[in-house]
Amino acid sequence: QSAGGRVHRLAVIGGDGIGPEVTEAALTVLDAAQARFGFTTERTDVPLGADNYQATGDLLTDDTVELLRGQDAILFGAIGSPAVTPGILERGIILALRAALRQAINLRPVRLYPGVPTPISGLTPERCDLVIVRENTEGSYVGGGNTVHRGTQAAVATQGSVNTWYAVHRAVDFAFRLAQQRRGRVTLCHKTNVLVEAGALWSDVMEEVAARFPDVEHDYVHVDAMCMHLPVAPERFDVVVTDNLFGDIITDLGAVLQGGLGVAASGNLNIEGTAPSMFEPVHGSAPDIAGRGLANPAGAALSLALCLASLGEGAAAAAVESATATVLADLPALSGEQMGASTAELGERIASVLAQGGT
Amino acid sequence: QSAGGRVHRLAVIGGDGIGPEVTEAALTVLDAAQARFGFTTERTDVPLGADNYQATGDLLTDDTVELLRGQDAILFGAIGSPAVTPGILERGIILALRAALRQAINLRPVRLYPGVPTPISGLTPERCDLVIVRENTEGSYVGGGNTVHRGTQAAVATQGSVNTWYAVHRAVDFAFRLAQQRRGRVTLCHKTNVLVEAGALWSDVMEEVAARFPDVEHDYVHVDAMCMHLPVAPERFDVVVTDNLFGDIITDLGAVLQGGLGVAASGNLNIEGTAPSMFEPVHGSAPDIAGRGLANPAGAALSLALCLASLGEGAAAAAVESATATVLADLPALSGEQMGASTAELGERIASVLAQGGT
Ligand SMILES: CC(C)[C@H](C(=O)O)[C@@H](O)C(=O)O
Ligand SMILES: CC(C)[C@H](C(=O)O)[C@@H](O)C(=O)O
Repeated sequence: QSAGGRVHRLAVIGGDGIGPEVTEAALTVLDAAQARFGFTTERTDVPLGADNYQATGDLLTDDTVELLRGQDAILFGAIGSPAVTPGILERGIILALRAALRQAINLRPVRLYPGVPTPISGLTPERCDLVIVRENTEGSYVGGGNTVHRGTQAAVATQGSVNTWYAVHRAVDFAFRLAQQRRGRVTLCHKTNVLVEAGALWSDVMEEVAARFPDVEHDYVHVDAMCMHLPVAPERFDVVVTDNLFGDIITDLGAVLQGGLGVAASGNLNIEGTAPSMFEPVHGSAPDIAGRGLANPAGAALSLALCLASLGEGAAAAAVESATATVLADLPALSGEQMGASTAELGERIASVLAQGGT
Repeated sequence: QSAGGRVHRLAVIGGDGIGPEVTEAALTVLDAAQARFGFTTERTDVPLGADNYQATGDLLTDDTVELLRGQDAILFGAIGSPAVTPGILERGIILALRAALRQAINLRPVRLYPGVPTPISGLTPERCDLVIVRENTEGSYVGGGNTVHRGTQAAVATQGSVNTWYAVHRAVDFAFRLAQQRRGRVTLCHKTNVLVEAGALWSDVMEEVAARFPDVEHDYVHVDAMCMHLPVAPERFDVVVTDNLFGDIITDLGAVLQGGLGVAASGNLNIEGTAPSMFEPVHGSAPDIAGRGLANPAGAALSLALCLASLGEGAAAAAVESATATVLADLPALSGEQMGASTAELGERIASVLAQGGT
């Protein structure tokens, strides 16, 4: 530990399936970043996920939440197992953490790195560099619902969506600030022509915030139209701000452009400083390939870069991103046997590019 | 008129922008289909859309609904104009018609025709032939909502979703029947891990219907995962059944695979025979290129094919689709000046391929 250097408390949740191995690879990268940029981390392993649930019966205890709350940031691998009923872990851990730790924004850069194969023909890295800002705490994710006459032909299920000025404003304001540091454009993505109440709130807030940022352009695209434009004309977008459900959908489409989930990173940001933010690759736990070194740690490494940026280690963040991009550029395939190196080896490769001071 | 032949009453809603010209081209194709297959149509032009709204002040009168109700089918071009507040026409005409005419299903074939350029690299027509069955009457489209404290920082907007066993079952049952005539696979697309009430209803109905169709396979894909799989592995899907909002989103993504909106067709199906179905190209009114013959009538012609199939003119439907595909295969570009022929000329070209009895 570098005496008197910057120290960050980091919770590490490897999780299930390929989660632990990609996280391990990201920590190898972190070691190299620390050595080069003169900061240290105090790391705490936190067992969460399907394996932990099956071993202990707990999804997320209050003690775990308090432990996490005391950290500066959280690195998260992936959770999930075919042995656990779908939905249980997602709601009981992922969504619960976003709420408990007030992680207002789900940040998903959609960036195509040079040399990474994308399924979109003719797409170039220059044309694909946007960020999706997803409101991460409400909308359809918190509306609740009700079912009457379940199991009969008279069944009716309702499902709600709650949208507060506070959370919408927090997301939109964040998007405009981010755009100021980028190419100066914010696009609202919603379905205002059908979801008129929520749509009006989002539109009202957009106008109100836009008035305070005269240097940032803004426009609006319906979510259905977004799915048409994003694949073929991502250069139209700089920062896209959207609600929780639409964000869930369009960020996965964004990952396609980037070459798939293995390369996609995300941050669940507490932007008020009241609790730590959490960073995770967009991919899942992929139990079918777990433990065999077949997963690409790029998503985890790029999530680490987002994490370092949030900790104020901007130079380290840029170097991790750049080293990851360098290693990605040379991969014969993005995952599996054809990748030409194991998950751990790729972590070491990124670390060594970083150590050599490239960038 | 062929004495004693089959006669179908057809309402024709050209609408706004490029709507009338693509519809006109489709009617040229219809003339050729009638001549070859020995049926006739009694056509009634129905003015609806932005121009009509501005001229008359009416969106959709009861008389118009009754007129439409008396038809066997409706051909619809496109509506919309920058002069009308966004949302007014969509809700007041399109959604109002779907409800009034009980058009339970929005049917969207996602088919890549040979020779049509797709933005997805390596995608072939063999791999891209699926149908999306979208529930067309409820979900988030009818939940209503409410806003308190609008215009203040205390504003809260709620938005509902209503899902009845009846409508969900109607859609799922339709999907399974359709799959029996195709490759025998139905995929439910939803977000059951988050929208638990609506999700449970959809899942319950899927299981119940699937039990009656032992010859049809079924599986489930979350809507976010669908946006990842659909572009790169459309061959995984045969019939996809989904709710109104998710259907709105994934069908536009489907159109991307097909080469864009110009080629995409849709049917709003009344499957109970209580009112006519309505067929429309997926593209909008494109006011910027209206009246200049720059629009591709393929979407309108393929919608006509769906229309003919619903009228029991299966042979004519197949011939129209095939003739449209033949003409599409030779186009240097899918729209605009580069298309090498005007909207009307393309209608004539499809008609002449059809008349020559190709197929
Ligand atoms: C796991 C699931 C609840 C989650 C979501 O829907 O938000 C995931 O899809 C994501 O995007 O992070
Ligand atoms: C115009 C609009 C209301 C409509 C919808 O949302 O259903 C359109 O996007 C569609 O898909 O037909």
